[in-house]
Amino acid sequence: MRWMRYRTDGTGNPAHYGIVDGDRVQRVSGDPFTGYTMQDTWHAIADVTIDVPVIPRTFYCAGLNYAAHAVEAARKRGVEPNLPKQADIGYRANNALIAHGEDVVIPPDAQKMQYEGELVVVIGKQAKHLTPDTALDCVLGYTIGNDVSERVWQRSDRTLWRAKNTDTFKPMGPWIDTDFDPTHATTTVSVNGQVSTTFATNDMLFGVTTFLCAMSQYLTLWPGDVIWMGTDGSSPDLQAGDVVDVTISGLGTLTNRFVQGE
Amino acid sequence: MRWMRYRTDGTGNPAHYGIVDGDRVQRVSGDPFTGYTMQDTWHAIADVTIDVPVIPRTFYCAGLNYAAHAVEAARKRGVEPNLPKQADIGYRANNALIAHGEDVVIPPDAQKMQYEGELVVVIGKQAKHLTPDTALDCVLGYTIGNDVSERVWQRSDRTLWRAKNTDTFKPMGPWIDTDFDPTHATTTVSVNGQVSTTFATNDMLFGVTTFLCAMSQYLTLWPGDVIWMGTDGSSPDLQAGDVVDVTISGLGTLTNRFVQGE
Repeated sequence: MRWMRYRTDGTGNPAHYGIVDGDRVQRVSGDPFTGYTMQDTWHAIADVTIDVPVIPRTFYCAGLNYAAHAVEAARKRGVEPNLPKQADIGYRANNALIAHGEDVVIPPDAQKMQYEGELVVVIGKQAKHLTPDTALDCVLGYTIGNDVSERVWQRSDRTLWRAKNTDTFKPMGPWIDTDFDPTHATTTVSVNGQVSTTFATNDMLFGVTTFLCAMSQYLTLWPGDVIWMGTDGSSPDLQAGDVVDVTISGLGTLTNRFVQGE
Repeated sequence: MRWMRYRTDGTGNPAHYGIVDGDRVQRVSGDPFTGYTMQDTWHAIADVTIDVPVIPRTFYCAGLNYAAHAVEAARKRGVEPNLPKQADIGYRANNALIAHGEDVVIPPDAQKMQYEGELVVVIGKQAKHLTPDTALDCVLGYTIGNDVSERVWQRSDRTLWRAKNTDTFKPMGPWIDTDFDPTHATTTVSVNGQVSTTFATNDMLFGVTTFLCAMSQYLTLWPGDVIWMGTDGSSPDLQAGDVVDVTISGLGTLTNRFVQGE
């Protein structure tokens, strides 16, 4: 099942949840976290404005979680790679979220914009002290994220606030797939239709179950929380006009254009 | 005016907003962010359960923002102090929030628990590209935070996830004061009634206006966002049974007991 959050009449109105049925979406009342009932209303997906699939209560992000990306990032900084030794989760910020189809706005003073295509875990149930056998029971499903980054600020600033969390830097969507299994999936990132990066989605240093167990030893996971699982490979420097597709096989494609900010 | 969020009939029911009037609180319908109307219902504050004054959309935290605290932290690590050169904001996580009067639960494997008493800015209006003249117009008011920290994890982990964001590590409250002016205030932290730390609240490396202007150059501030402004001085190591009061003169006192987790 694929959950879409969307608007039918402009961006000023509240978003609704619906369930994707081919090229249509069937509206529900309620939401996938607290309960819902189907309504007799269908829309063509082409006719709706897709919204971010959830505004998380807490926006978690694994950061460095693929060996090749960590090695590449270290090489570019001229230092030895220092692979994470344990599943220490990080954070991103809700202000930066945009939906599938919305534009990433490049700040006027940005110098080096790059993509990071990521698998996103969406929590469906409150959970603490998870164990490997049952950890995945708290997962509602999966979506796709693009952890857009400005690499100069990422090195110069004490925190990742503007390098990672400038408005529009966190595209997420287009939907939450409750049946997706990352085990044999491939993540592919394309720029203007040309494949730029491809990697095995599940080739993580610490997998979803490991993060869920580690995190929930100390913190409560809440319905709607999201966990971005990190990225592999590297990105070219992006320019205004570039269109970036992040595709995870069996899950979908997240598409966003980069535009120049004033 | 002081805004309190509270429950009258157990923790399982929704919290309401009210306006403090001496030792009573007058209930409102609505909230301070989207609008409200007064109701003809008063409660004695002693009879209600105070809740966290707001669940932020994004939970910002300045981190190192007082010179003495930064120097002390560096000295304990045996390194030269490296004072922040610009107002780079950081983050904390909503899972960790607890209210005035709730217990901070010390994890069984925690070794070095400390307090950090902080001024908290509560955003009232959506804002971007703020300038010094008008930046404070987006502020609804101020509350108090205790940025509880486990210092061993703070040094060992790649991120601050469990050192700062373990469940119950972020007491905030007891209310939002819309008239408070930090200019001449004093922050005092007491343990079991004995004053342990005291500092000029406004003696920050980067003040509220500076942070608001820097942040909003790149990101949109939303109603309900909070910004914790950092702390000065240092804390003793806290034990189960300790009661910590964070008092900011003219604003209030945030009180939480530390208890041992299982």
